[in-house]
Amino acid sequence: MRQSQLFTKTSKDIPADEVSKNAQLLVRAGFVDKTMAGVYTFLPLGLRVLNKIEDIVRQEMNNIGAQEILMNSLQPKKLWTDTNRWDIDILFKLKSQTNNEYALACSHEEQVTPLVKKMVTSWKDLPETDPKNKIFPLSVYQIQTKFRDELRAKSGLLRGREFRMKDMYDFHQNWDSLNAYYELVMQAYLRCFERMGLEVYPTEASGGIFTTIPSHEFQAICSAGEDKIYKVPSLGIFFNKEMAPVKAKPWNNLDETVQPRKDILAEGVIGVEEVAKCLGIPIEKTTKTLFYETQDQRLVAACVRGNYKINEEKLMKVAKKHLKLAPSDLVKKITGAEIGYAGLLNLPEDVEIYMDESCDNRKNFEMGANKTGYHSINVNFGRDIPWPEKFYDIKVVEEGDIYPETGEQYEVYTSAEVGNIFKLGTKYSDAVNFKFLDKDNQLKPVIMGCHGIGTTRCMAVIAEIYSDEKGLKWPESVAPFRFHLITHVNKKGDDSINQQIFALANQIYSGKLKLVFNQANQQIDFIKSNESEEILWDDRLNVSLGEKLTDADLIGCPYQIILTRRSIENGNIEIKHRATGQSFQVAIEKVLT
Amino acid sequence: MRQSQLFTKTSKDIPADEVSKNAQLLVRAGFVDKTMAGVYTFLPLGLRVLNKIEDIVRQEMNNIGAQEILMNSLQPKKLWTDTNRWDIDILFKLKSQTNNEYALACSHEEQVTPLVKKMVTSWKDLPETDPKNKIFPLSVYQIQTKFRDELRAKSGLLRGREFRMKDMYDFHQNWDSLNAYYELVMQAYLRCFERMGLEVYPTEASGGIFTTIPSHEFQAICSAGEDKIYKVPSLGIFFNKEMAPVKAKPWNNLDETVQPRKDILAEGVIGVEEVAKCLGIPIEKTTKTLFYETQDQRLVAACVRGNYKINEEKLMKVAKKHLKLAPSDLVKKITGAEIGYAGLLNLPEDVEIYMDESCDNRKNFEMGANKTGYHSINVNFGRDIPWPEKFYDIKVVEEGDIYPETGEQYEVYTSAEVGNIFKLGTKYSDAVNFKFLDKDNQLKPVIMGCHGIGTTRCMAVIAEIYSDEKGLKWPESVAPFRFHLITHVNKKGDDSINQQIFALANQIYSGKLKLVFNQANQQIDFIKSNESEEILWDDRLNVSLGEKLTDADLIGCPYQIILTRRSIENGNIEIKHRATGQSFQVAIEKVLT
Repeated sequence: MRQSQLFTKTSKDIPADEVSKNAQLLVRAGFVDKTMAGVYTFLPLGLRVLNKIEDIVRQEMNNIGAQEILMNSLQPKKLWTDTNRWDIDILFKLKSQTNNEYALACSHEEQVTPLVKKMVTSWKDLPETDPKNKIFPLSVYQIQTKFRDELRAKSGLLRGREFRMKDMYDFHQNWDSLNAYYELVMQAYLRCFERMGLEVYPTEASGGIFTTIPSHEFQAICSAGEDKIYKVPSLGIFFNKEMAPVKAKPWNNLDETVQPRKDILAEGVIGVEEVAKCLGIPIEKTTKTLFYETQDQRLVAACVRGNYKINEEKLMKVAKKHLKLAPSDLVKKITGAEIGYAGLLNLPEDVEIYMDESCDNRKNFEMGANKTGYHSINVNFGRDIPWPEKFYDIKVVEEGDIYPETGEQYEVYTSAEVGNIFKLGTKYSDAVNFKFLDKDNQLKPVIMGCHGIGTTRCMAVIAEIYSDEKGLKWPESVAPFRFHLITHVNKKGDDSINQQIFALANQIYSGKLKLVFNQANQQIDFIKSNESEEILWDDRLNVSLGEKLTDADLIGCPYQIILTRRSIENGNIEIKHRATGQSFQVAIEKVLT
Repeated sequence: MRQSQLFTKTSKDIPADEVSKNAQLLVRAGFVDKTMAGVYTFLPLGLRVLNKIEDIVRQEMNNIGAQEILMNSLQPKKLWTDTNRWDIDILFKLKSQTNNEYALACSHEEQVTPLVKKMVTSWKDLPETDPKNKIFPLSVYQIQTKFRDELRAKSGLLRGREFRMKDMYDFHQNWDSLNAYYELVMQAYLRCFERMGLEVYPTEASGGIFTTIPSHEFQAICSAGEDKIYKVPSLGIFFNKEMAPVKAKPWNNLDETVQPRKDILAEGVIGVEEVAKCLGIPIEKTTKTLFYETQDQRLVAACVRGNYKINEEKLMKVAKKHLKLAPSDLVKKITGAEIGYAGLLNLPEDVEIYMDESCDNRKNFEMGANKTGYHSINVNFGRDIPWPEKFYDIKVVEEGDIYPETGEQYEVYTSAEVGNIFKLGTKYSDAVNFKFLDKDNQLKPVIMGCHGIGTTRCMAVIAEIYSDEKGLKWPESVAPFRFHLITHVNKKGDDSINQQIFALANQIYSGKLKLVFNQANQQIDFIKSNESEEILWDDRLNVSLGEKLTDADLIGCPYQIILTRRSIENGNIEIKHRATGQSFQVAIEKVLT
């Protein structure tokens, strides 16, 4: 493409309304235009990158036998009431002139399940995954625009109200087939991200509250990310924040002698740090107690050592029930104290108690006194509160925490989620009564998986990672163009050097180029490549060479081919490798086929 | 693709909720699935067709220098209030959790104009169209999903609530550049439709009420279409219903002698047919008079010969003002009669009158008597009502009508609109104050064009036209697959003939195929073609040959390559051309490369 015909312009100014690096760079370099927070137009350069990302995803999904379809965004309300998801906050809803209600899809389980149901009656319609014999299950995917009513959309293209995603849904007659396909999808995802140049780790995440089935997030190490992931160094496995099993950082005071319990008046002192400071005790002696209400209005108490937070997902898994934070009046009724001064002392016997293992190995610890305004100190198991039958892990992982099985400290990375894979089981097939006739002549629910890759989000993460103070530096696989041809001619006249530059540029631009960067020896190699589609030619007149080079660094194509009067006079072409900043002077005849 | 892995199934049953042929066939053959009226999923076969259609459009747009972008659907309300279009009926509106209001775009003038405004300051940013020197104007397009709150969406994919469209917008410093580009776009559109196999005519349509600039609709001759187009045979030009200039079908009674005017009581007799019957006069003697209100509350009367309808667009153009039908109380106040009995007799002088030329050449005609319940007969110009200064063409064209310039009768075709091109002028640039600094240092508004092709609509029209009682018969350029390989093996055993069929099928499927249908002599030619991506292999076991052939005719790939035991035993392969139904027995060795 000739840059003189490109309608977008670069900008030196950081857009005032963008705080994220990805959006700042992509807007400045003319890849995207912001319509409103979380909603962008993809301009010619940006669309080329997005198309390359999506083509990589498409190829890898086709390779595991998935069939591409294209579903709609406008969906009838009924699909969402069938699965009890009509009321989720992030679902955009709208009405027609005739008062029909529609959802604007944020995901397509609701639509794809009844769609595939029309095509399946028996086990014969559900091939079992058998990669050796190239037999793939019924798997469909689309690369399509999604809508989410996000409250906060401040991370540029990382978190959008309108964004693009590859979503895939697979359908199985048994769990073995789902499990085998899940592995294939995981490998295909890793190939996708590797091809895009992203360092991505499959991270164990929860499959939901009441399942022991893990799911996986694909987390790219990225300082602008919104997540943290926790690596077990010796095993090379990763957990997300909700899933990481934790043994508390070692701390004990077992050598203390048991002291008499005291209730200390400390009105208005509630947070553990304030409590520790006010009472003059280490924070490890404080105890955080939260009260939860079950669906049948009973109370559950959960405790962690003061410097931890309760992980509600872990708590619900060990309690095996749905819990929500108890209202203050209920807490007061049962414990006698306002929240903040409520603890385990003298609780009625029907309050279930879950105690985190961080509470163990302590003597003379603090706890709400169950009298408003008072904290108890020198609380001890056995004397003041019963020893729990069992200690659990119900805490949120913190930096410095330990993976219980190996005793190693987690390595913690900031990351951005670029994909995820789920074993849905029968959640959605049950919702729409999607059954198949099995070999044993029994009707059974179809077992499903679903798997997503955020393609616009991948673009944002690549922009975050592959950039420096000068601009973007795209990996070759997703660069808008592989080559940026920069010609600089003398304004004064149409002399022979100018003519030589134009003639040479035209040859290169028409595809007569044969250079490739050799990653191994960091040199330019001469291998024939037909790349006419992959050249952006900065043929602009009246733009200085300096400005062109600044623009080229901002736009970030991997190779800059620079034709100036001086280099031509020396019989050379300058090739600059954007990623490393290396420059090469190459003889003209070596570059052309 | 192996058909055994295709998750869609064909159906013999016509879907009960589809009245249009395109949707019936596309659903039965497994190309689309209906989510709700006007909203469809594109299944693997359907998506392949849609992609081929969109690739044709993309290539042709790129060829005229247009730059592909991808805009969003979710748009802030302000974009639409800026252009006074927020209240259009077909615009879907929605609110976020935080009560922000958004539109779901049915078109993108509102967004693209401020977007391009950011990139343009001077005439240098607006190249003038110069096709000879390959200089194209600033032109951007997208192929994207659109939303329309349609009241009636009963024509399958022809009229969607969610549909896909290529929309293009070009920006110019002067009208010459727009006019030149308009011609290029017209030629590119014709190439698109020709490549898709559609017989499409550019049809003069209105550019809007107060402009003499015509626009063009691209109308495909299609019996399921919702439009009628009017051809001037000797000139080969077409008009749409609103634009066709009309000279009324010849009728006169100039040889009658003038009769005394009479007012006849005919209460409840209002429609012209009923009036003519009741009064015993030919319908050509009746007069249809409608009253309109101007924006400053004055009255305008418009008359056509009874057997015509008033064309309000033509009327407003000749009246040079906005008009809406006058309310009945205003009509009664001015004329003294209820609507239906109101005419031109004794009107106040300040009522403007426009009379269609079909009212000329008449004597003793009928007209509302301006007394409720009464019609006047034997009305005559000069005596009862003044001769008009001028007769106009303010009628809607009817079958049998005449094109005034040549005196020929129009040929009338039923058609479907698959595209349109517009010269917008400065309508949208004025709305957002989009100006550029011209060579003369003056700020001037940017001149715009906009042009659309409905890609899903094209697919529907192709399905309507390229089909017969057996199913679809796709043109090669947009067929889901060019070849449908059908193998039929003996269920009983894995004998040598079965093995031969499989070996041969595998060779063909891997791309070792070299046949091409010669349109000229309607024969199979043997030209090497690498078509492995273009073969759908019906490798299903346990499906009869009859069923496979029925399915193949329904799906409609252009060539069926049929391998049966009998043909293989004879050393032949059967090739069937779906469009013509011709079958060819071809020696095996001739087919393979």
